[in-house]
Amino acid sequence: MRPFKRLLPREAAMEIIRENIRRVERVETVRLEEAAGRVLARDVVAGFNVPPFDRASMDGYAVRAEDTYGASSFSPRRLRLVGEQHAGERFEGEVGPGECVQVATGSPIPLGCDAVVMVEYTRLDGGHVEVQRPAYPGANISPEGEDIREGDVVVKGGELLTPGKVGALAALGVESVEVYARPEVAVISTGSEVRPLGGPLEPGQIYDINSYTLSAVIAGNGCVPHRHGIVPDDRDALEAALREAIGRDLVVFSGGSSVGSRDLLYNVVADLGEVLFHGVQVKPGKPTLFGVVEGTPVFGMPGYPTSCLSNAYVFLAPALRLLAGLPPREPRKVKARMAVRVVSSSGREQFLTVRLEGGLAYPVFKKSGAITSMANADGYVILPVNTDTIEEGEEVTVTLLG
Amino acid sequence: MRPFKRLLPREAAMEIIRENIRRVERVETVRLEEAAGRVLARDVVAGFNVPPFDRASMDGYAVRAEDTYGASSFSPRRLRLVGEQHAGERFEGEVGPGECVQVATGSPIPLGCDAVVMVEYTRLDGGHVEVQRPAYPGANISPEGEDIREGDVVVKGGELLTPGKVGALAALGVESVEVYARPEVAVISTGSEVRPLGGPLEPGQIYDINSYTLSAVIAGNGCVPHRHGIVPDDRDALEAALREAIGRDLVVFSGGSSVGSRDLLYNVVADLGEVLFHGVQVKPGKPTLFGVVEGTPVFGMPGYPTSCLSNAYVFLAPALRLLAGLPPREPRKVKARMAVRVVSSSGREQFLTVRLEGGLAYPVFKKSGAITSMANADGYVILPVNTDTIEEGEEVTVTLLG
Repeated sequence: MRPFKRLLPREAAMEIIRENIRRVERVETVRLEEAAGRVLARDVVAGFNVPPFDRASMDGYAVRAEDTYGASSFSPRRLRLVGEQHAGERFEGEVGPGECVQVATGSPIPLGCDAVVMVEYTRLDGGHVEVQRPAYPGANISPEGEDIREGDVVVKGGELLTPGKVGALAALGVESVEVYARPEVAVISTGSEVRPLGGPLEPGQIYDINSYTLSAVIAGNGCVPHRHGIVPDDRDALEAALREAIGRDLVVFSGGSSVGSRDLLYNVVADLGEVLFHGVQVKPGKPTLFGVVEGTPVFGMPGYPTSCLSNAYVFLAPALRLLAGLPPREPRKVKARMAVRVVSSSGREQFLTVRLEGGLAYPVFKKSGAITSMANADGYVILPVNTDTIEEGEEVTVTLLG
Repeated sequence: MRPFKRLLPREAAMEIIRENIRRVERVETVRLEEAAGRVLARDVVAGFNVPPFDRASMDGYAVRAEDTYGASSFSPRRLRLVGEQHAGERFEGEVGPGECVQVATGSPIPLGCDAVVMVEYTRLDGGHVEVQRPAYPGANISPEGEDIREGDVVVKGGELLTPGKVGALAALGVESVEVYARPEVAVISTGSEVRPLGGPLEPGQIYDINSYTLSAVIAGNGCVPHRHGIVPDDRDALEAALREAIGRDLVVFSGGSSVGSRDLLYNVVADLGEVLFHGVQVKPGKPTLFGVVEGTPVFGMPGYPTSCLSNAYVFLAPALRLLAGLPPREPRKVKARMAVRVVSSSGREQFLTVRLEGGLAYPVFKKSGAITSMANADGYVILPVNTDTIEEGEEVTVTLLG
């Protein structure tokens, strides 16, 4: 049986992953209402000014500013009201000296006017308006192009479409946009004891967990999971599964991580392509493999459900985001105090899953084989390689999951 | 024209929202592969133990522990190898004294054995195995039910299905689960100047921005947006739109927020139901309305794109999560230094949008009417009601958007 070569520290493993994952460059066109959360593929340039006309930013009266100079409550300026300009309409004609037009927020500014007096500083008196404060030219007007100027790059290719950026595209009337396609990711569970959900279990068999947890992480990081089924611990079956899957943008195996069976995946990847690392200095999750076959990155995740999911958060999720062109996700972190003393002497960086309650962090880790070590966790505490004890009551940083 | 009544502080407004939003109780059945991110509607109880049998947690040899007592490298115990037990199979017969069976990680423990000796502490010698270390009873065995015990509540109704919880359900072989239905939310833009995307703009018209930004926030918080189109500033049209929309779980209007037009929505909601607040002490976003009509909560968001989206993050998103039964989302926050001096004297709590670059926060706020105030923002800095200045270089907390 092949022992692990040197275990790679986490950051060294991430560096290899980063060097070997490229953004998927296929593009597709989606309607703007489905574009939030996607990554824009091409710069969108404004074809016109936004707003497309000078408009009132307050309700009140459009005036010629010079007609208001010197106005006060004691000495109001009296202007003749010559019309009403609602939003969405266009006032015909030009406003002359001593005249004004009623405007609502968003109304175009009638020709001849260069300021808006807020309604609060006026008094309507029959066909006249008394202006009680002076307005400078441009007062309470949003000039054409104030928000976006024709020719501006409004959203750049490669940017994540947040609600705000979707709004900027809507301001330009853009109905649909080109975005990068979501990467297609093959998920393959291995293990002769692993059975599909729903069917009966024979003695010695267990249900497939990893393809479900991995698919959830894949979908949660901008990619599309494709479950390629369960493959027994058999070299030919593994090779056939890998050959079928390398048309995808990424292939993720789980299982085959025990000393006996892990050589199978190692050998298949090494024969068809290249293994770039095998074995990482983290706990749980040591037997993680990464390689490239015919240009397709391949992950071999541990078979144990907690090891598999823990390393899916640590290594796979950042890889998926690179593939999808999504920005790295900074995990949320909170401070807590350790509820009990924890001792570890793994010689690896340890991800200790914890539940949070009343500011205290309670370890929920049972064993790597126990999915409840992850299901019941709110987050994890990282014990560095050379830390083997956390005292009860010691402050720790909890990285939140989910 | 109706002035704002007393402006409500943010927390008082949130309290009214929390008191008037109830989780949508409709349930639907989804397949487990689509369940991540949904909220489980009923407790799921384990119908059997996981693992369903005692299994090896290491590769090695299943033994009777007492046969190994006293073993060392110098004085190994010699056991007869009577078979091989792979994962997913079942060893027939019982292992007797002085015998052992080869096992792989995950293999059931053969009858008669009560420990596993790791392969690293053995030497294979023809039909015999030399054991070089003693094993205590239970060593390297995951006992039946160690992870989940029959009768355990594995995931509770009301819990968010994280990847880990999906994994726990998979461990039970659960193919589909009952989850709360995603709330259906009506989105209505108002304003006679507002036009649908794609068509031409006449002078004085602008494109609909808010229904797109609101829909993105709605979809991003576990609900389903339904765009009910654009309604002109007209009482009868607004009333008809509201009557049509109250079959939904929540109705969100935008616009109608200027002094002239805002009375329209206020009056329609007040006539058909009850306005619970109108006007909040935040900037931008003062003219936000909340009410209830025939049991359906109704939001009236400001018409200005930045005010609308800013308050969608502040007030609408928490309301959507309550409606969907999702836990509150703690926003990510980072520390930064203000790149320039900022002066505000609004007398309201101010949400200042900023762009982050090299640890510095640059204000990107142009005007409430400018969508680029949000589109170009990485997050916002909150200026409390009584703070009117942030000095250049002062440390601030930036709440990240998106």
